[in-house]
Amino acid sequence: MATRGALKGLDPDSAQRAGVGALIVNAYHLHLQPGGDAVARAGGLHGYMGWQGVLATDSGGFQIFSFQHGHVADEVKGRRHQRPPEDDLLVAAVKVDEDGADFRSYLDGSRQRFTPESSMQLQRSLGADLLMCLDECTPFHVPAAYTRAATERNVRWARRCFDEFERLEMGATQSLYGINHGGVYPELRSLSAAAISGLPFEGMAIGDCLGQTKQDWYQVVDQVVPLLPEERPRHLLGVGEPDDLVEGALRGIDSFDCAMPTRVARHGHALHRGQPRFRLDLTQARMAGDDGPLEEGCDCHTCARYSRAYLWHLFKAHELLGITLTAEHNLRFSARLLEQVREAISAGRLRELRNQLLSRSAETG
Amino acid sequence: MATRGALKGLDPDSAQRAGVGALIVNAYHLHLQPGGDAVARAGGLHGYMGWQGVLATDSGGFQIFSFQHGHVADEVKGRRHQRPPEDDLLVAAVKVDEDGADFRSYLDGSRQRFTPESSMQLQRSLGADLLMCLDECTPFHVPAAYTRAATERNVRWARRCFDEFERLEMGATQSLYGINHGGVYPELRSLSAAAISGLPFEGMAIGDCLGQTKQDWYQVVDQVVPLLPEERPRHLLGVGEPDDLVEGALRGIDSFDCAMPTRVARHGHALHRGQPRFRLDLTQARMAGDDGPLEEGCDCHTCARYSRAYLWHLFKAHELLGITLTAEHNLRFSARLLEQVREAISAGRLRELRNQLLSRSAETG
Repeated sequence: MATRGALKGLDPDSAQRAGVGALIVNAYHLHLQPGGDAVARAGGLHGYMGWQGVLATDSGGFQIFSFQHGHVADEVKGRRHQRPPEDDLLVAAVKVDEDGADFRSYLDGSRQRFTPESSMQLQRSLGADLLMCLDECTPFHVPAAYTRAATERNVRWARRCFDEFERLEMGATQSLYGINHGGVYPELRSLSAAAISGLPFEGMAIGDCLGQTKQDWYQVVDQVVPLLPEERPRHLLGVGEPDDLVEGALRGIDSFDCAMPTRVARHGHALHRGQPRFRLDLTQARMAGDDGPLEEGCDCHTCARYSRAYLWHLFKAHELLGITLTAEHNLRFSARLLEQVREAISAGRLRELRNQLLSRSAETG
Repeated sequence: MATRGALKGLDPDSAQRAGVGALIVNAYHLHLQPGGDAVARAGGLHGYMGWQGVLATDSGGFQIFSFQHGHVADEVKGRRHQRPPEDDLLVAAVKVDEDGADFRSYLDGSRQRFTPESSMQLQRSLGADLLMCLDECTPFHVPAAYTRAATERNVRWARRCFDEFERLEMGATQSLYGINHGGVYPELRSLSAAAISGLPFEGMAIGDCLGQTKQDWYQVVDQVVPLLPEERPRHLLGVGEPDDLVEGALRGIDSFDCAMPTRVARHGHALHRGQPRFRLDLTQARMAGDDGPLEEGCDCHTCARYSRAYLWHLFKAHELLGITLTAEHNLRFSARLLEQVREAISAGRLRELRNQLLSRSAETG
């Protein structure tokens, strides 16, 4: 997750060394700054941000519509705390109609408009390998009728995205993913799955509101995956805690994106299999005397060279290097877990891996 | 300059790639946190901070005595603005006597004491290659009599440092530098130079107050260098702007240390030969449309891959990567300039290099 065209806190070489194969960038944020033209001048995102691996762009519908509903981001992600009241000022800043969405830039207040067509044009300038259709993402608290209307419009927008993608002959170098919607309503999920499966997208993403708990998203994914074409890759948008990777793979998900590994690094948390919620707090006083690596047995560059005691010192001294070194460990943790998921799938041992992972984290939890 | 055991904003590999050969770490800061024992447990600073190149430790006398005088750091460095009044609270926190100095930790208020002997013991635990004697650094505004008393005591402390260094048999793996003192008073500089030249230090550093302007330090260095033993390396403490490197080399200085390259990177400034004060401000609006490298002809990793426009975007978006990429460029700038200084010395063209450097910066200044 390199939202604004940069991984947070570390350079692309370190991410590559950690085994990260793909980054996802947010087209909405890059549209507002620096703009699609600036990226196109550099020959596209690969050159602009110095990343040679796979690149995806999300349309940014999620971010635009977050503002419309005040706190859709929290709800879709299952967080229940309230946003500060300032966000209410933004409610009126987004207006959706059949053709597209009007919104204001959070940077300079300027009026902006996204349509399915303009989103494809923007994502063409950005030049990523995988693109996402423009969609409206609905929060949990809206009436079912709202979610129905949005789901149906998202299907029409997906068709328009595909048509524009074809018209611009983008298929030679780029691939477009359709997105499944419908919130927590099985009927709407089915309707959406049938419609996007009928279009020749290269891959399928599962998006929109996934409920409020992990059980909720398991249910959505369990229902939707059998409705998607077997031969096309399936992506689960914005989900990627360690247990999610295994639970998703068990349910037929092929890829994930998540800002968590770099985000928790900024708070001094190293991913660790034996810790509650898979997080080791490197700022705890007991780390000061711990000369072991962040995680025993980890093959990352940080664990090979540095101790928990050094990382504790860096976070206490507010040295940016603490974030950088922890972020590389966290990316390696996720990449390594996905390597193990692939091996377990080949060996028919995925359930065993899930049970191991959950029991180790629970032991000390 | 890796004050607290970490370069600010980038990892040791990137610094090495930039051609940085040596880092200097502050023994005083590391004593307060994490403590010499924590570093010793990791086998010394090389292992602790993952740096395979040359490492030096400064004693930290400069930092301790900064608090005594309220704003010695600003004065020694020629900055004239006032520190915030809170610093006055710290004035009483340092007490020097013939034996050593009492001070309080800025982290937890605990009472601490440094003596020449304890400083050597600390620097032994830290395990750097080059060590500095403990010294009191005097500010510009104190009476000449104060500077005289401190200079004479610094000579006695230098002898005690050397004796402790010998007693602990540290010479097998570590080298100790003596430091020349005397503020802007030629008589005191001579007295100090004669005394430290009489001790078998591996190298000589020029420290203490160097005046308020560049002309002041040129005068100090011009006077002192001929008084130091020809065959031993000479280090100029805490000075390292681009012009300083050449002006210092012209005056017989062999090495420098300076936090400027990483510090200005945190403010979005890239070192550049053609800019006023050698700084290109990457946050200026005109950078948004500039697809060129930070500096034409630079061979650093950042200039090879990234544009000014991308760096502008990173700083505007508050992405830490902007600091990291700019810091690597700035370190490469300084390392490359020192490479050119060495070549120019061999070719007898050092004055020419100085004139080129100053005229290019002045052109656009």
